[in-house]
Amino acid sequence: MSEPVTVREVGPRDGLQLVGTVMPTQTKLNWITRQAAAGFKEIEVTSFVPPKLMPQFADAAEVTMSANAVPGLTASTLALNLKGGIRALQAGAQVVNFVLSASEAHNQSNVRCSTEASIRAFRGLLDWQWQNAPQTRVTVAIATSFGCSLQGDVPEAQVCAIAAQLAEAKAAEITLADTVGYANPHQVKRLFRAVAAEVGEVPLAAHFHDTRGMGLANVLAALDCGITKFDAALAGLGGCPFAPGATGNIATEDTVYMLENMGLRTGVDLDALLRLREDFAGWLPDEPLQGRLGTAGIARTFAPAA
Amino acid sequence: MSEPVTVREVGPRDGLQLVGTVMPTQTKLNWITRQAAAGFKEIEVTSFVPPKLMPQFADAAEVTMSANAVPGLTASTLALNLKGGIRALQAGAQVVNFVLSASEAHNQSNVRCSTEASIRAFRGLLDWQWQNAPQTRVTVAIATSFGCSLQGDVPEAQVCAIAAQLAEAKAAEITLADTVGYANPHQVKRLFRAVAAEVGEVPLAAHFHDTRGMGLANVLAALDCGITKFDAALAGLGGCPFAPGATGNIATEDTVYMLENMGLRTGVDLDALLRLREDFAGWLPDEPLQGRLGTAGIARTFAPAA
Repeated sequence: MSEPVTVREVGPRDGLQLVGTVMPTQTKLNWITRQAAAGFKEIEVTSFVPPKLMPQFADAAEVTMSANAVPGLTASTLALNLKGGIRALQAGAQVVNFVLSASEAHNQSNVRCSTEASIRAFRGLLDWQWQNAPQTRVTVAIATSFGCSLQGDVPEAQVCAIAAQLAEAKAAEITLADTVGYANPHQVKRLFRAVAAEVGEVPLAAHFHDTRGMGLANVLAALDCGITKFDAALAGLGGCPFAPGATGNIATEDTVYMLENMGLRTGVDLDALLRLREDFAGWLPDEPLQGRLGTAGIARTFAPAA
Repeated sequence: MSEPVTVREVGPRDGLQLVGTVMPTQTKLNWITRQAAAGFKEIEVTSFVPPKLMPQFADAAEVTMSANAVPGLTASTLALNLKGGIRALQAGAQVVNFVLSASEAHNQSNVRCSTEASIRAFRGLLDWQWQNAPQTRVTVAIATSFGCSLQGDVPEAQVCAIAAQLAEAKAAEITLADTVGYANPHQVKRLFRAVAAEVGEVPLAAHFHDTRGMGLANVLAALDCGITKFDAALAGLGGCPFAPGATGNIATEDTVYMLENMGLRTGVDLDALLRLREDFAGWLPDEPLQGRLGTAGIARTFAPAA
């Protein structure tokens, strides 16, 4: 019996961030519904950022409410500050994933405050959630954990110290995110091991971008550290609008394919996922899609993990 | 002090196999010379196949002779049968890399004989070399070691048995090749370990294609087995014309970048390599180039392995 791993689809959030055309709400919901039907248990469905800044997510509340009704799906949402987090919970979000940056420069660019102020906001959100929506989960992602295109190096000790504070505040999960595709497999092993030593029982997850081709190698390195939850975006879309040079996430279909080939059960129906990808290409005709499996197709020797 | 690894450029051979336009000899030599100057110690410069079948390599003898004159470079050549191997050695090749397939179906398609007949041809080439060109090296690659798009599964025991025969015949090096991009990291570890147990002191090398996105993850897996020599092609070109669905090799620049980021010394000047890639794009204006580093550029935090 093979081990289970979780691939969390973040395409409807991270994948759409750099897409100029606003995707209609019904298309987003069609996407989310079909991807859930293909076996995805958790999808990051939207972002509670100010609609003026990101019109793509003006329908965040509606997407959240409708995604909650998809059978078997945990619909998670992103927030960057206390206000956004509360708005997400008030809209009925089951999971709010709060994002702050280990890089001060990126935190300023992305959230317009210091990392320390973001940590305070995260604590405030947990307090609010505890009093008003105790059945929900507040998770957190540490962006630019592996380096920053604005600031440069991000010391591992800094990431560890932040992770320790987030764990102490009772984050439900901590994701180490390689926002700009700087991470390499050695660094991934080093940082995940160091952070794991700081956070006790809090589960860790990994969020990699394939900007410099190391995305799936980094997944492999993280697996070696016992990480079993990975963010990915359909067709490798994605990228942070406030980090120069940021490009796509690891492609969901390639990630699932590698994991299944390695005998790790994702629960995903790859054929259904590739059919969705084909339709997806039609929904975003101006976006160059990434990922290799969509072009090459499944190998004739492939057997899903049993 | 970091460990050295070797990236063998195979672009002038594997990379050009599927390129319809014949690249002028002088352009090939310019490419080879500049890549050697960027720090590559071994380049597979051409293929001694019948020019009628592959006009791209009609200049094999001339390319070999000129590449031999490039300072510090070991110019290796490919051969698929005894005649081609002797032709390569007579042309002055320092290294002949003989290719046969673990898959009978692919061996028939590629060389028009059984794998066993190819092994006999390899023994014949070693005899000829021993008597006529003892200062040269005859290496061998086992194509479709990880599966075949014609035959399907290729049993590991079969690859091991072939490798044992090649080692016993005194191959100077054995490369396990994933001709059609079927390999996954678990399989890579399993097969390299199994083959290593069969071949005694004969050094092993890895040849991966990135057809399904697992190329660099497979490099990482092979590194874990102690493999320190990797084939790659500039801009991820490549593919076997006689294996359906075969596409590009792992991109040299992405491979070098990952290794250097991991602290493994390749000896390659990445800036010079990326400048070469830019000019290369102009030499093959009709070819879509692969690899991520060429688009994303080197991270601002990057420091080469010391």
